[in-house]
Amino acid sequence: MKKVTLTLILAYAALSGLVAQQPPADGPRFTNGTSLLRPTNYREWPFIGSSLGLAYTQVSDARQAAPPFANVFVNPSSYRAFMQTGKWPDGTILILEVRRSSSDGALIKGGRYQTPEILVLEAQVKDSRLPDGWAFFSWGPGRALKDVADPAPSTATGNGEATCVECHTKHAAVERTFVQYYPTLLEVARQKGTLNPGF
Amino acid sequence: MKKVTLTLILAYAALSGLVAQQPPADGPRFTNGTSLLRPTNYREWPFIGSSLGLAYTQVSDARQAAPPFANVFVNPSSYRAFMQTGKWPDGTILILEVRRSSSDGALIKGGRYQTPEILVLEAQVKDSRLPDGWAFFSWGPGRALKDVADPAPSTATGNGEATCVECHTKHAAVERTFVQYYPTLLEVARQKGTLNPGF
Repeated sequence: MKKVTLTLILAYAALSGLVAQQPPADGPRFTNGTSLLRPTNYREWPFIGSSLGLAYTQVSDARQAAPPFANVFVNPSSYRAFMQTGKWPDGTILILEVRRSSSDGALIKGGRYQTPEILVLEAQVKDSRLPDGWAFFSWGPGRALKDVADPAPSTATGNGEATCVECHTKHAAVERTFVQYYPTLLEVARQKGTLNPGF
Repeated sequence: MKKVTLTLILAYAALSGLVAQQPPADGPRFTNGTSLLRPTNYREWPFIGSSLGLAYTQVSDARQAAPPFANVFVNPSSYRAFMQTGKWPDGTILILEVRRSSSDGALIKGGRYQTPEILVLEAQVKDSRLPDGWAFFSWGPGRALKDVADPAPSTATGNGEATCVECHTKHAAVERTFVQYYPTLLEVARQKGTLNPGF
């Protein structure tokens, strides 16, 4: 009888969304409440897009020599949720991995490929505890990656540069994410009608 | 007693590699023996590299307008095997997804991103049934992707172009694969000493 009762409770919790509202097991892991641990297995997460010469600020030195590639990955359960709904669940973590590019020895002249040198590693997290609902983190340059990153400031620091939140609020295609650069996700967002106004 | 015997047999089989030699469950699926079915879930497989302007032949029209991106994915069990050994197990399938690039509306001038338009979709498969051990397949242009692809010819067809096998034999960093363009795999191959002579 106890077993039947527990089964009914779990079934009700699942149907009413109580279970789904738990943070995902593959989502962001914090220490001290808001400092984000660097995931070590993100290269096994779904890849959602790559660009060349589109990464910003922190890689300006490297860009003078060669435009960097930027690969973006997302935790698997949030990827599956987006593909079904066109929206990000709470606890979504996107990883931005910026790599030096090279054309040395390329089999086609002018072609560029990704090198083992990571220039910078960053994350964007959907976190309902925050006023904006999103936070941005950087584990720093690839030659000295930190294990833990504090959230980037959400308001301007006075150096004239726009903050992550400001730029993502102004230009992102879905919520605060640059889905305009993630081709398979862009098609889902169009189908589901979840593009921000202006897209 | 029967249960113990079966357990011992399975343990012996696992230790001696008999189980490991089975084709992987996430590997290539053939019809008529050698025609390769197009996997529909490869975007959830591990991503191993992206290049710009390095994809060949079939995309020459598109390249005149904009250099294409080429994303490469590999079936999960073969990815895990490579990360441990620096070699590809039989039944490995790599997917080459070539996409049109664009700089329209890019937030950084000159930056290029991937669009929803697939130009061509191809595969490379390690198959111990073949003399060379590797075969190449194309499901054709993205606007008319086939569900099934026959292996590409392994000897020259007379039009002066090198075949897939010829070029991969001459230029690949590990076995027949262009690991020189897959940064995380390149580091593993260096550590494991599995680079082809010349790399």
